[in-house]
Amino acid sequence: MAKALAKKAATGKKKKPVILITNDDGITAPGIKALVEAVKDLGKVVVVAPDKPQSGMGHAITIGHPLRLHPVHLFDGVEAWQCSGTPVDCVKLAVDKILKGKPDLCLSGVNHGANHSINVIYSGTMSAALEAAIESIPSIGFSLLDYSIEADFTGAQKYARLLVEQILGKNIDKHLCLNVNIPSAPAELLKGIKICRQAYAKYEEEFAERKDPHGKKYYWLTGEFVNFDKGKDTDVWALKNNYVSVVPVQFDLTHYILKEKLEKFINTK
Amino acid sequence: MAKALAKKAATGKKKKPVILITNDDGITAPGIKALVEAVKDLGKVVVVAPDKPQSGMGHAITIGHPLRLHPVHLFDGVEAWQCSGTPVDCVKLAVDKILKGKPDLCLSGVNHGANHSINVIYSGTMSAALEAAIESIPSIGFSLLDYSIEADFTGAQKYARLLVEQILGKNIDKHLCLNVNIPSAPAELLKGIKICRQAYAKYEEEFAERKDPHGKKYYWLTGEFVNFDKGKDTDVWALKNNYVSVVPVQFDLTHYILKEKLEKFINTK
Repeated sequence: MAKALAKKAATGKKKKPVILITNDDGITAPGIKALVEAVKDLGKVVVVAPDKPQSGMGHAITIGHPLRLHPVHLFDGVEAWQCSGTPVDCVKLAVDKILKGKPDLCLSGVNHGANHSINVIYSGTMSAALEAAIESIPSIGFSLLDYSIEADFTGAQKYARLLVEQILGKNIDKHLCLNVNIPSAPAELLKGIKICRQAYAKYEEEFAERKDPHGKKYYWLTGEFVNFDKGKDTDVWALKNNYVSVVPVQFDLTHYILKEKLEKFINTK
Repeated sequence: MAKALAKKAATGKKKKPVILITNDDGITAPGIKALVEAVKDLGKVVVVAPDKPQSGMGHAITIGHPLRLHPVHLFDGVEAWQCSGTPVDCVKLAVDKILKGKPDLCLSGVNHGANHSINVIYSGTMSAALEAAIESIPSIGFSLLDYSIEADFTGAQKYARLLVEQILGKNIDKHLCLNVNIPSAPAELLKGIKICRQAYAKYEEEFAERKDPHGKKYYWLTGEFVNFDKGKDTDVWALKNNYVSVVPVQFDLTHYILKEKLEKFINTK
């Protein structure tokens, strides 16, 4: 009895929230290390991230072949696993096989490169976050507007911490998913956070056509970023004006306005 | 002058609309053949589809390596190309390098297996359709609730044709994207079309844990489909009741309700 009470007293102190961290640049990318360092004293952090870069993987999952998980020692005092799958696979496997339950929060990133506007759809970083939200785990994806491996994550770290502190343990929507982009500017020049909508801005793609040494054609995806959206309430506008953009993201893709129109327009027989 | 007029008269007859067809099961899948057959007299059909199955690829794009395109003769009297990339890559490459412009309509499928409810997010079939819609090309993705390679596509063909006839050439939203699922039932038992919203229904995942011949663990994605959504206006309800479900899909993922809440909740400095 005394033992049981002692145990209760010991476990009675407030349990640390569990924070799952993943990314799409791979577990060795500087961005995920920066994110772990920024928040690791705010909860029990567990990292489960791809063993190789997975940029542009969107919401891909691995169906046709098996997945591997290996423990790694890459972060001081933090449990970490590398996974052979996509960012979405990492979230699914972490919940089912590593945490054996839902974490209190899932963070993804910090991505090396922007994921604003339409890019949210192609982004492995944001798909991992959205997967968590689908699973009723509040989530935030972070992306820095700097592709470089030597990018300065100071601003990203400051705002990641600020947001996590405000959301962790709050009774906020369990399907919360935030797409956070941070301008590539010294932390002291950032003007704060703007809650935004997703801009209609996207890459106008062109493929570079080349010939291989055997004379056969191949194509490289390339393109120019174009903003078609003149609104001042968008993520692209906020970032251009040195604000950290925060777009809440949903996974109900139903176009309700078009739904109403179609109900009148389509002959259903 | 006479020559110019004669030319005008010749080209003056109504130009056939161009229909781009792709899928995610690969160009040799019976489902894409069924779709081509169903609509090929309604316009000039061009097929650009993956050279291998790409199920579950979501909105993945190929960034890190080059893409290949090869002409193939698989469909009677229809231009067709196989592509080494994802379904989204196929749409991008078709527009830029094959059609050299936007088709009037993009069709994707018929997928072997359901893409209703949350599956729209993981589906290569629907991501190809959504990519077209982002590019201002109206699109429809078709999926049959039968994974089998010998599936009966008669019902899918009937409703694909019915929808294409109603949409092609109409002045409908250029970003139109429809997620169409067809029950696995004889065509004569289908009750018609229901315009629906996306159900909150999803796979509750579990990974099967196995050991390879060297004693090392690996995991296979598996899971059970659960409908958490009791609405009678959802795609899952419609399909269960033998209707063809049509969900209009949007690519603005902004969660506007949550955006308003966050504007009050988040300290932005």
